[in-house]
Amino acid sequence: MGDTIRLGIAGLGTVGTGLIKIVRREAALLKARTGKDITISAVSARNRDKDRGVSLSGYDWEDDPVVLATRDDVDVFVELMGGSDGPAKAATEAALNAGKDVVTANKAMLAVHGQALAELAEAKGSVIRYEAAVAGGIPVIKSLIEGLAGNEITRVMGVMNGTCNYILTRMESAGLPYETVFEEANQLGYLEADPELDVGGIDAGHKLSLLAAAAFGTRVAFDAMELEGIGRLTIDDIRAAGDMGYRIKLLGVARMTGRGLEQRMSPCLVPATSPLGQLEGGTNMVVLEGNAVDQIVLRGPGAGEGPTASAVIADVCDIARGIRVPVFGQPAASLSEPVPALSQTPAAYYLRMTLVDKPGALAKVAAVLGESGISINRMRQYDHDGENAPVLIVTHRTARDALDTALAAIEGTGVVVTTPVAIRIEEV
Amino acid sequence: MGDTIRLGIAGLGTVGTGLIKIVRREAALLKARTGKDITISAVSARNRDKDRGVSLSGYDWEDDPVVLATRDDVDVFVELMGGSDGPAKAATEAALNAGKDVVTANKAMLAVHGQALAELAEAKGSVIRYEAAVAGGIPVIKSLIEGLAGNEITRVMGVMNGTCNYILTRMESAGLPYETVFEEANQLGYLEADPELDVGGIDAGHKLSLLAAAAFGTRVAFDAMELEGIGRLTIDDIRAAGDMGYRIKLLGVARMTGRGLEQRMSPCLVPATSPLGQLEGGTNMVVLEGNAVDQIVLRGPGAGEGPTASAVIADVCDIARGIRVPVFGQPAASLSEPVPALSQTPAAYYLRMTLVDKPGALAKVAAVLGESGISINRMRQYDHDGENAPVLIVTHRTARDALDTALAAIEGTGVVVTTPVAIRIEEV
Repeated sequence: MGDTIRLGIAGLGTVGTGLIKIVRREAALLKARTGKDITISAVSARNRDKDRGVSLSGYDWEDDPVVLATRDDVDVFVELMGGSDGPAKAATEAALNAGKDVVTANKAMLAVHGQALAELAEAKGSVIRYEAAVAGGIPVIKSLIEGLAGNEITRVMGVMNGTCNYILTRMESAGLPYETVFEEANQLGYLEADPELDVGGIDAGHKLSLLAAAAFGTRVAFDAMELEGIGRLTIDDIRAAGDMGYRIKLLGVARMTGRGLEQRMSPCLVPATSPLGQLEGGTNMVVLEGNAVDQIVLRGPGAGEGPTASAVIADVCDIARGIRVPVFGQPAASLSEPVPALSQTPAAYYLRMTLVDKPGALAKVAAVLGESGISINRMRQYDHDGENAPVLIVTHRTARDALDTALAAIEGTGVVVTTPVAIRIEEV
Repeated sequence: MGDTIRLGIAGLGTVGTGLIKIVRREAALLKARTGKDITISAVSARNRDKDRGVSLSGYDWEDDPVVLATRDDVDVFVELMGGSDGPAKAATEAALNAGKDVVTANKAMLAVHGQALAELAEAKGSVIRYEAAVAGGIPVIKSLIEGLAGNEITRVMGVMNGTCNYILTRMESAGLPYETVFEEANQLGYLEADPELDVGGIDAGHKLSLLAAAAFGTRVAFDAMELEGIGRLTIDDIRAAGDMGYRIKLLGVARMTGRGLEQRMSPCLVPATSPLGQLEGGTNMVVLEGNAVDQIVLRGPGAGEGPTASAVIADVCDIARGIRVPVFGQPAASLSEPVPALSQTPAAYYLRMTLVDKPGALAKVAAVLGESGISINRMRQYDHDGENAPVLIVTHRTARDALDTALAAIEGTGVVVTTPVAIRIEEV
């Protein structure tokens, strides 16, 4: 590369459009900060004729992103198409094989093919940067891989799907059921074409798997993640959690334990007064914990044209400045194969169950918990109607398997009307 | 530099000791992440015989940090002595002149001599990195200069002096007067040898001046900062602010306006429910706002052995990884001379005054404010004793000069017993 960094941009949705705007608007600033002219040679998207509110004149058009990725006048291939396979992967591989650097916002592709792509990049002397893939505008990959480089990372946590957080905070504030707010979010265009990517926790899980690899020096292991979406949460859970001083978040937690790598993306209760508990709407938050730094909390917009394009252009600037760090913070070949471990780190749990409204029902539940070694922190019985009696219990810290055994035993007593709901209370 | 990065560490207080521990403990991790062996060639401090809880055997000792800084077997000079001038500056200059890179935690030195040192470093092809100088373990310099490289920064804010935040939160929680908590903090060793560095806002002001230079591409202009410490705050102010939904923080705000660069480090009211308002004790928080990313909030420990050493070793790792970015994000010669502007960005203000307890006194105050075009948002009159009547007023947004004129006029009416206190309410 000379004094110019020439981009080829594949994918002209919100983020691609935002990137073009920044490259045009901030040309002088980018030159001052990187010493390079950052230009766009060519672009590619599915629909050439769509009005994107930004002129594409001056940029060559390529129908085929693979052709775009390998053009002689492209130094950095910017992949903003999305999807774990298909054109995104083909074009990324083509770019790397042609010795280009790659900047991508594609968490799905890296969650599935991150190891192979990292190995390919290193074999070719190229870098892949993906700040925009995790937590939108928050510089979390940089903070983790570079800013905390001297730390053994002990835990990574994050609320990283704005749509889920929007749904949960909206259910709470408006007192609406999940289905209604889901439909609202759909109308507002907040949901992916396949909503399960959002509400099933898959998108957030992809992000967590990338953080875990960078944090623990392990190969990306999205397949080994415990994944649970927000679809089974009820407005009752949200209200009851609030009554007890908690809020429910779709929270990702990754931690390396003596038994192996725990990775979990699931609804959790967090204290309402904690930074995570106070997160509203589409804002993302990532918590990084290391043995030297203790705890760092990063908060910012998790999506949107400006914030995500801000992360993409930061990666481009890094490349322009000669910053070349391995994809996951150390050479791909040195990443270890993680031993997946179920989340057995003990925690307190929130339990919701509906009991038959008969004397002694609650005593039976309490007895089973006690026999399983699970002690009760708080218990609340709501108005009962003569048939059913809703009960909430907050336990003291217990291992998940002990709890599962106890819940099965509780079901066996015949005093519960529906299968008990258990939600982890994460210590933050 | 070959496959080894050899450090020379001057200053073996808390941070230096923490750095040595990390270099020893994490040798394998640092090697995996940077590809280099990070070693210590020699150290220097005022007292060779002090027990620091860490062995210095294996490291050469130098009495003179300048000699240390220029040793042939030192690649990176780590300056942890502190002080804007004296040995810290002499050794830093010597290191740069000898072509060494420098990592420092010295905010005072960079606030006063940052431009000259940056120019010297660039002339010699060296870098100066100073992540530990601002907000302890939080990777804020990296987030600002690298993570937000594609943004025009619009505002930088921060609570960056843990001691002041400790004093303010302790006054509030224990209901103790400033003097008592100041003495407590002194006993606990929280205060600098010259306490005015902390409570006068100078230390935090140094940090803000570095952030402002990096944010706005201007030369460091600590001399032009509006600086006000926490010494005049009373427990009454803290309580009254709390009554109205605010907390008082020593808050730094830098922003580039049409009139010039505003830099202010002063007590401010912030909403109690905002991230800044909820900050407790020694935790630091920095808010970065840019035209693309909107707002990023970074939170973490602002001091302490582990967190500060974490920032120092991250800078060392950056150097080991070949990351070489200009000191303030662009070449020193291209930094513009800022036009200092007083903080005239309009804001709401909290006013506290004690009136003579006579009918019509409050009406006079309200009349003066009204004549000055300052409208009152809320007003509260506390119990009066027949002589004095404490009054709190929250204004709507007003320019500071209009407010100052009004306050002078209020004093002129003769109805106030003491000079009114005015504290800005920062919109966060």
